[in-house]
Amino acid sequence: MSDFAINTVDLSPEGDALCIVDQTLLPGTVKMLRLTAQKDIWQAIYTLQVRGAPAIGIAAAIGMYLAAKEIVADDFDGFMAQFAEKKAYLASARPTAVNLFWALDQMEACALSHRGEALPAVVAALRAEAMCLREEDIAMCKAIGRHGAPLIQPGMGVLTHCNAGALATVAYGTATAPIYRAKELGVQNFTVYCDETRPLLQGARLTAFELMQNGVDTCLLCDNMAASLMQQGRVQLVLVGADRIARNGDAANKIGTLGVAILAAHYGIPFYVCAPTSTIDMAMADGGGIEIEQRAPAEVTEMWYQKRMAPEGVRVYNPAFDVTGHGLITGIITQHGIAKAPYEAAFRAWGL
Amino acid sequence: MSDFAINTVDLSPEGDALCIVDQTLLPGTVKMLRLTAQKDIWQAIYTLQVRGAPAIGIAAAIGMYLAAKEIVADDFDGFMAQFAEKKAYLASARPTAVNLFWALDQMEACALSHRGEALPAVVAALRAEAMCLREEDIAMCKAIGRHGAPLIQPGMGVLTHCNAGALATVAYGTATAPIYRAKELGVQNFTVYCDETRPLLQGARLTAFELMQNGVDTCLLCDNMAASLMQQGRVQLVLVGADRIARNGDAANKIGTLGVAILAAHYGIPFYVCAPTSTIDMAMADGGGIEIEQRAPAEVTEMWYQKRMAPEGVRVYNPAFDVTGHGLITGIITQHGIAKAPYEAAFRAWGL
Repeated sequence: MSDFAINTVDLSPEGDALCIVDQTLLPGTVKMLRLTAQKDIWQAIYTLQVRGAPAIGIAAAIGMYLAAKEIVADDFDGFMAQFAEKKAYLASARPTAVNLFWALDQMEACALSHRGEALPAVVAALRAEAMCLREEDIAMCKAIGRHGAPLIQPGMGVLTHCNAGALATVAYGTATAPIYRAKELGVQNFTVYCDETRPLLQGARLTAFELMQNGVDTCLLCDNMAASLMQQGRVQLVLVGADRIARNGDAANKIGTLGVAILAAHYGIPFYVCAPTSTIDMAMADGGGIEIEQRAPAEVTEMWYQKRMAPEGVRVYNPAFDVTGHGLITGIITQHGIAKAPYEAAFRAWGL
Repeated sequence: MSDFAINTVDLSPEGDALCIVDQTLLPGTVKMLRLTAQKDIWQAIYTLQVRGAPAIGIAAAIGMYLAAKEIVADDFDGFMAQFAEKKAYLASARPTAVNLFWALDQMEACALSHRGEALPAVVAALRAEAMCLREEDIAMCKAIGRHGAPLIQPGMGVLTHCNAGALATVAYGTATAPIYRAKELGVQNFTVYCDETRPLLQGARLTAFELMQNGVDTCLLCDNMAASLMQQGRVQLVLVGADRIARNGDAANKIGTLGVAILAAHYGIPFYVCAPTSTIDMAMADGGGIEIEQRAPAEVTEMWYQKRMAPEGVRVYNPAFDVTGHGLITGIITQHGIAKAPYEAAFRAWGL
């Protein structure tokens, strides 16, 4: 993506390395990594040097191509046996990342569909498949951007939470896609407000960074300042991502999203969820079924700090996600368009 | 206050020093300071070793007594000339702290009312005045606690924001007074949830600390997690303080309070503001007149951290306070009782 300042995840032009930006060093240092060894790729996924479900998936797909390229085998079955081993190894880097497994399965299916061909041809097909998955991710984000961009008008304030941005995908992002598209279309004079998003600060570290890198007028705030900003009439639109959407439209996303949705409803500000249709789980009736991971207290009391900022032994409530009820959501923007309530009917109309 | 684990601000038993807990070292280190020199007392107020409007006022009053004790003068006018100089010096430590000026004025008025008496008698009167102001502050907080405590029932979750606690007053605090009173009354099995309160983290550093020190069951959360907690039915009451209340009941308090009030209204949770009547400004018609201080971007991007957590040059929205509209407030608890809407009539019934 030459139009993006940072190439989140790509195959090197020579076809011999996975190229990612080390997201653990952002925003202070922009360091591009060139990874060839499987253990380095595993480590990059494990340590969140690459993060965001779509970006992890593409990194793994490219990683599988690089692994396949090194396999020495007498026949296809020998090749696939080694392929399966390397696949299991990469899958172990983030054991809850659905997109990681999905991408690895796509690569395996691709290899299997080339049974009977010479091994170099299988490897070539795997390279093509990885690049195809990458292009599909870009196309999907671009489509979300195309559908969402008309919501952004000159002079607007747009609030977002966490990072559902280009750094979480190959390019454009999901919640940020309408923003980047509006920018491309020449919409003038709009500002994007980024919630810092405690405790992991993805809004401050990643979203503010990528928006500024791409020339978007950006303003950072603490999560508890969004109400004040809305009260002053400085926010006309909220765009957030989603980790999982139930078939009634209830959406799980980074902790804090629910609060923003309630504030937006209070001030009559449109609140849109941006996500690919792969995020929509038609088997789940409503958000009550979404399990919410509780994370370590130290993320709240110690992480990033020079010294511990809360009393020793204090109990901490630290859920990773919350669930925003469908009634608080103005619309759900996917690659197919904007779904409005009743969401199940809209999702079914898309063939889900 | 022997029933309090920490004595926020007091005169030493020997009557020769201001004793405070150094709040800049909390919660990691509990260090009691014994200050005698005027420059050390000035420094303690300036560097927030003592903070919270009522606590600052009492520290300054005790500081003025200690200053007066050292004055060598031939007559009352000579005494008062030096008194005025020392008063101006202490007043310069926090130029926007209304309680600081108020306490210093009280001490000056006390001295002036003793014109004609021997200087040692004037100094003795100043000591009595400082201790009286201190006792009044305790009595006022206790009264807020008495009126608010019946709101706290066994098994409840009580949410608070920032520190309107014992560390901001002499003892009991304002928003925390009903909590400590309920504890004294033997109310069982209630939990206080403390918003960490970015960016200065008074909830994590101070409120969680003092509640735990005083045996209250305490749970810390990031500001953006309050909505999730309420959605799960774990909060039945919100208690916050106030920096300034307009005569229609609009209340300015630490940034983030407005958001909590909107969430509480959404979930039908009672939201009470706790403050002495000195906080109510009957000359101000509504909250629109309250000026909101914008603070330094570095508080959001750098403060407390090992390294900068946001991109260089990013704009930051960092207001110190927000204004909660009276319509979102269930009641305002003062030393006189609980005011309900219409607030102006209730305030006037108290003689304001």
